[in-house]
Amino acid sequence: MIYFACDYAEGAHEAILQKFLETNRESTLGYGEDRFCESAKEKIRQACGDPTADVFLLTGGTQTNALVISAKLASWEGVISAETGHINCHESGAIEYTGHKVFALPQKDGKLNPRDVDRLVSAWENDGTKEHMVKPGMVYISHPTEYGTLYTKAELTALSEVCHAHGIPLFLDGARLGYGLMSYASDMDLTDIAGLCDAFYIGGTKVGALCGEAVVFPRHGAPSHFFTTIKQHGALLAKGRLVGIQFDTLFTDNLYWNIARHAIDMAEKMKEMVVRLGYRLALDSPTNQQFVILENEKMAELAEKVAFSVWEPYDETHTVVRFCTSWATTEEDLAALEKAIG
Amino acid sequence: MIYFACDYAEGAHEAILQKFLETNRESTLGYGEDRFCESAKEKIRQACGDPTADVFLLTGGTQTNALVISAKLASWEGVISAETGHINCHESGAIEYTGHKVFALPQKDGKLNPRDVDRLVSAWENDGTKEHMVKPGMVYISHPTEYGTLYTKAELTALSEVCHAHGIPLFLDGARLGYGLMSYASDMDLTDIAGLCDAFYIGGTKVGALCGEAVVFPRHGAPSHFFTTIKQHGALLAKGRLVGIQFDTLFTDNLYWNIARHAIDMAEKMKEMVVRLGYRLALDSPTNQQFVILENEKMAELAEKVAFSVWEPYDETHTVVRFCTSWATTEEDLAALEKAIG
Amino acid sequence: MIYFACDYAEGAHEAILQKFLETNRESTLGYGEDRFCESAKEKIRQACGDPTADVFLLTGGTQTNALVISAKLASWEGVISAETGHINCHESGAIEYTGHKVFALPQKDGKLNPRDVDRLVSAWENDGTKEHMVKPGMVYISHPTEYGTLYTKAELTALSEVCHAHGIPLFLDGARLGYGLMSYASDMDLTDIAGLCDAFYIGGTKVGALCGEAVVFPRHGAPSHFFTTIKQHGALLAKGRLVGIQFDTLFTDNLYWNIARHAIDMAEKMKEMVVRLGYRLALDSPTNQQFVILENEKMAELAEKVAFSVWEPYDETHTVVRFCTSWATTEEDLAALEKAIG
Amino acid sequence: MIYFACDYAEGAHEAILQKFLETNRESTLGYGEDRFCESAKEKIRQACGDPTADVFLLTGGTQTNALVISAKLASWEGVISAETGHINCHESGAIEYTGHKVFALPQKDGKLNPRDVDRLVSAWENDGTKEHMVKPGMVYISHPTEYGTLYTKAELTALSEVCHAHGIPLFLDGARLGYGLMSYASDMDLTDIAGLCDAFYIGGTKVGALCGEAVVFPRHGAPSHFFTTIKQHGALLAKGRLVGIQFDTLFTDNLYWNIARHAIDMAEKMKEMVVRLGYRLALDSPTNQQFVILENEKMAELAEKVAFSVWEPYDETHTVVRFCTSWATTEEDLAALEKAIG
Repeated sequence: MIYFACDYAEGAHEAILQKFLETNRESTLGYGEDRFCESAKEKIRQACGDPTADVFLLTGGTQTNALVISAKLASWEGVISAETGHINCHESGAIEYTGHKVFALPQKDGKLNPRDVDRLVSAWENDGTKEHMVKPGMVYISHPTEYGTLYTKAELTALSEVCHAHGIPLFLDGARLGYGLMSYASDMDLTDIAGLCDAFYIGGTKVGALCGEAVVFPRHGAPSHFFTTIKQHGALLAKGRLVGIQFDTLFTDNLYWNIARHAIDMAEKMKEMVVRLGYRLALDSPTNQQFVILENEKMAELAEKVAFSVWEPYDETHTVVRFCTSWATTEEDLAALEKAIG
Repeated sequence: MIYFACDYAEGAHEAILQKFLETNRESTLGYGEDRFCESAKEKIRQACGDPTADVFLLTGGTQTNALVISAKLASWEGVISAETGHINCHESGAIEYTGHKVFALPQKDGKLNPRDVDRLVSAWENDGTKEHMVKPGMVYISHPTEYGTLYTKAELTALSEVCHAHGIPLFLDGARLGYGLMSYASDMDLTDIAGLCDAFYIGGTKVGALCGEAVVFPRHGAPSHFFTTIKQHGALLAKGRLVGIQFDTLFTDNLYWNIARHAIDMAEKMKEMVVRLGYRLALDSPTNQQFVILENEKMAELAEKVAFSVWEPYDETHTVVRFCTSWATTEEDLAALEKAIG
Repeated sequence: MIYFACDYAEGAHEAILQKFLETNRESTLGYGEDRFCESAKEKIRQACGDPTADVFLLTGGTQTNALVISAKLASWEGVISAETGHINCHESGAIEYTGHKVFALPQKDGKLNPRDVDRLVSAWENDGTKEHMVKPGMVYISHPTEYGTLYTKAELTALSEVCHAHGIPLFLDGARLGYGLMSYASDMDLTDIAGLCDAFYIGGTKVGALCGEAVVFPRHGAPSHFFTTIKQHGALLAKGRLVGIQFDTLFTDNLYWNIARHAIDMAEKMKEMVVRLGYRLALDSPTNQQFVILENEKMAELAEKVAFSVWEPYDETHTVVRFCTSWATTEEDLAALEKAIG
Repeated sequence: MIYFACDYAEGAHEAILQKFLETNRESTLGYGEDRFCESAKEKIRQACGDPTADVFLLTGGTQTNALVISAKLASWEGVISAETGHINCHESGAIEYTGHKVFALPQKDGKLNPRDVDRLVSAWENDGTKEHMVKPGMVYISHPTEYGTLYTKAELTALSEVCHAHGIPLFLDGARLGYGLMSYASDMDLTDIAGLCDAFYIGGTKVGALCGEAVVFPRHGAPSHFFTTIKQHGALLAKGRLVGIQFDTLFTDNLYWNIARHAIDMAEKMKEMVVRLGYRLALDSPTNQQFVILENEKMAELAEKVAFSVWEPYDETHTVVRFCTSWATTEEDLAALEKAIG
């Protein structure tokens, strides 16, 4: 089976496993107070161009979203998300479990529009009964989005400005941030993200790690007692080194960016190939997720050889499917896909 | 520095790292639906002697306690724990965060007494105002306890009987279960635990894994929709294989039990050694945590060469300190300790 | 000032105050275990035509919604509501505070469409990733709706059938139930409501009481330990008689229905009057809330003499305003309104 | 039946009912924005001697405790209470339901000792693992206590100083505050309470009201957006006047204090009477709850004529029972009790 179903199907980049082996018998303090975590955090601060950034290493995306959102919101506040946002659809109600409402706004290609955000927050501000309503207290976006699309720097700046005009923080879910920033289409780097957002995370699980997300709160923006909150949510690893070693390795010699760029190269080749073979794309994604329209019979046939994700119906006789590349995708995988799909 | 401060100071048993390397490029489904998780669960069911057991693989202890307790309790129920229990002291209020009260009962050597449990539950049952009170709805114990002590089979049976007489489940925190069951003093094995408890977990993080706890609900006892609850708590790993591979390896060829036994052998040698050198033990622990009484000046001196945990004051001039062995402790470590402490 | 702004602007029907006086020095048990509560509940069971109904007396609407919804849902479930539903807009996130998601569906005149409900629940049932999603676990409607409109018996039956086909309960918010069932347009009575819904409440606060909502769970449908849950939510009155006496009085000699009918009579006269005077209605409401389109200058002028609610802009130069009648509205009020608006 | 079982057995002081009647048809804004609430709050501010006090009117005690505690605590904090405190025993886990731990400390006659508080908070402050623990973030006391006892001004000052030395607020549950401050033994008045506490409430339900507690946050100390939080907890009354009128009446012409003093007079007479008749008191309560030791046979006999509360066993053959007086107790009640018990 040729595997393009998702970007978390394999283990970790071998440099990480190698580092596990090398450091395995070194005794360290627990709970993230080890030299690997310290080093990883320092490298991330440097990559963000913000020596004042607070960095925390967590395990997974839903955990990170719930922790950051609940810790940054007051109890009477909710979070704004695209209706297709991961927190609104695919996290089993993890945000609501922490007691907060998700305001779902319309989206285009998975992206929020600053005008919609402004309208929602202004409506609350001007509502005579606002004290009976949840206050919109944060904006959540993902970059890349669930559709593989990217905010331009201008778009992210506009969102950031709307948020700050209303005094609310902007939080960016970067589960696939590497694939976003290394896209040929990206006009931003990590320092832009750190400059425009009030909280964001650098996804490890989907970009070469076994697990791990690095949360960044630029400009000393971490919620008070966040360490205790992490523990309270059951998200604190006794062996913090598990994530520390991974991010320390990923942020050494640009490994994180190099393997992300590799996935983008593979995705672009795949896109070129499927278009060349006459397939249509459902939307123009510049990242590692590609959405291809397949005739249903073809899809069924292909499914015997290739693992992909069935995304949504396109019309009566066609379906949109998703092919993901990742740090682990090889030229051989692409060749095999071409042979299967051609 | 010679390290005896805790049992989560090193990485993982090398067989696990080896398995990571071997399987690294194998593409699998995410979220624990991979062959490693399936295999691990099947081996655990067999080790429990209960083919009907529901098994889930989680990441850490506090996470597991909060998930199991909140999922098994009704909203109007609370959990009984020794006042020294981990959930009552060192989990940042993770249980209360899920909305449930912890009833703290007196303990002896970290253990709950069935009579105290019976008294508390009976008092609720017979209270004319009980509908205004939290119902005691579960008993939580740890085995070994925070003091390294063990319940005998007779004691665990008595607790189990009290629980079941009152219709409430018994949950055993087995963060150090391997060290407990491989103690020279243990009169139980895993099938006894599975037979007497309604939920328990087999600790990986402290017994050779990088992370991971295997929760077992014997006799198809898992809470409804527990998978969704795991996701809702932010505890679902995208790469479930991370824990699957570890438990699959640990439960192959008795690795889990062998490395736990090694830690016990080391602990017993250490105990024999400190006693031989004239030190007193604060209590008689049969597992991998040993509590030694040190004269304060000696303690300060020793702290320059050996990492240990300061437990509690003993008297004006003495302190109880904890030395932990683990799967990673070597004969060389012991020799170095003897040289330092002698 | 002539008051048509809402239906909770005055005290209580005088028969209730009279009953307070008569019974004031009678000593009773607390927490709702008094003869007034018992009598009220029995009368409500009879009015529902369901001797097996479980009845609880609470204080207010948001409290009741949060209690019923959180007690009937499992932790992994959410509640479906019209996007204009009170729980989705005007309860400060009280539902999410209990940990549950509100699924907002499109509405027409404030009403949910059974097909939309079916589509949402079926989509969840058929989603391959449904274990990562909140399960739709209940349908919430209000009757009358926030727009004063009513479900027909056929519509409520269809909703009830969709719910039950999917095995989920139907909950009806009856904060204004009296005004709904006594509408000239109503083709249902209380026994229909009890027959089709799994939980509902009979609103007192807006229909003649100082406070109080009577929750009914037909067919012994109360959640387990609901009394304790009420206390846990801070919703248990020490002097339960406060609500007991009120509902006992309201359900004696049809007082509840008679005063509701009076409000409807007043509303119909008002509607006839404003139409006669040349005003347009924003929608055709058959209950005590009437939505009138006013030219903005007229509105400003009127606001000096009449209290009403500004509902929403109609166009550049007009606004929809709400006039409410209630049990307390008099013919004199109507005459004064006509004089002011004419 | 002669009723001494509790202090919430009758309706309301007649002056309140009279005021309901007088104002019944007056139309007001809802949600507490009416002139009665404003007047009540202003009178309470004056009685507290603090024109900067924030005052909120709520319905019941458990509701008030849960609201104040959860709104004043950060998510990682818990509240300290006597182990016999109402929040720890008889509120169905309402505090834990909001996500917070109750730290239970030993008590003497229902009272907390400042040294115990200091010890607990200092232990947390000095614990090397404190970031893994719940921070003690507030002290909760009741005055009078559950045993009818009172803090002296010196004792309350000492508690207040300990709290403020550690930077945590002191919250006083005054469900029976009137009976406390009008006790012959009291050396404090309301301005002392307001000066020493950071939050407290003046109980109405047990002191002449049908329902209602007035929460006071001296020195503008209300939690941010507390109105929205009240709504979110389901504790906001549409007809806020219900509580507003009651407190406005109670704080007119010293009614609250006069009726509380009456209950104290009755309690002192009762105490003198039972002692004269040869009964022993279980403890020396200076307020409206009196704890009398009855021989068990006598108790059973008495129970046929007098309603009282069985408190706890005294010895094999005796039981402690509680007799409560209240604003509603009459000389005739006392005479009847004497006849029954004599």
